[in-house]
Amino acid sequence: MQPLQDLYPDDFSHCYGCGRLNTDGLHVKSEWHNGGAIARFRPAPYHIALPGFVYGGLIASLADCHAMATAAGASMVAAGLVPGRDPTPRFVTASLQVDFLRPTPVGTELILRAKAVERGEKKVVVEMSVWAGEAECAKARVIAVRAPAAMLPQ
Amino acid sequence: MQPLQDLYPDDFSHCYGCGRLNTDGLHVKSEWHNGGAIARFRPAPYHIALPGFVYGGLIASLADCHAMATAAGASMVAAGLVPGRDPTPRFVTASLQVDFLRPTPVGTELILRAKAVERGEKKVVVEMSVWAGEAECAKARVIAVRAPAAMLPQ
Repeated sequence: MQPLQDLYPDDFSHCYGCGRLNTDGLHVKSEWHNGGAIARFRPAPYHIALPGFVYGGLIASLADCHAMATAAGASMVAAGLVPGRDPTPRFVTASLQVDFLRPTPVGTELILRAKAVERGEKKVVVEMSVWAGEAECAKARVIAVRAPAAMLPQ
Repeated sequence: MQPLQDLYPDDFSHCYGCGRLNTDGLHVKSEWHNGGAIARFRPAPYHIALPGFVYGGLIASLADCHAMATAAGASMVAAGLVPGRDPTPRFVTASLQVDFLRPTPVGTELILRAKAVERGEKKVVVEMSVWAGEAECAKARVIAVRAPAAMLPQ
């Protein structure tokens, strides 16, 4: 199975956070697993807030893209499609809430585990935790909506 | 007067979002004005979510750093210090909430206007709006706390 972001249509694959066609981007990759999605990301040495600790804006960015993929995966399952095999529909972020539970250490791969906790036709609510090893460093709650017509390629 | 981030002590000036010593970073600059803070930022062409629209994770990052500077400025004023002249104390983010009101167009300078709406000894709550020209594109509410001892340089 492929990461969900690699199955966005080309027009939706330029995202700085997760687009495979954005050569300057972060390339967040979310894999569907057990009814939710997992992403793994190793921050660059310059992705710091203070020396030794990961930048919160990076964590918010990872949460944002990972939540959109999770929302898409949940909507696919509901429609009888297979996340990681079938094309991924593009959601966008209506609201992003990140609670930082403790400083996130650098030098460790971060693991984001997300699930959809509410799902409607147009709106999906995703919750996730961000882990550095055994430490839960952040939680996020993200409201995803289907990409509106105004954002679609003309 | 200087941007508040340029008056963080050197040890606190490595932030990817706003540290003057982070050569790979975004260099968010917040200026104290009329009891609040204003930041101006022009996203790079690759800072997109979909073609034509700014990446939400970037907006969250700008909000994060701008809120920390705003919290610091409010705490300075309460202590009889002058934001933009005296050294800026370092706050860190406890919680970050961003509501995306409409897609944020690229090619325009973004303006972030923030104020502290609650202020205690250790915790400051900041609210802001993110504007692209005449359009209010996002709102953020951020809880800032004084950098804990565990994050200070040893």
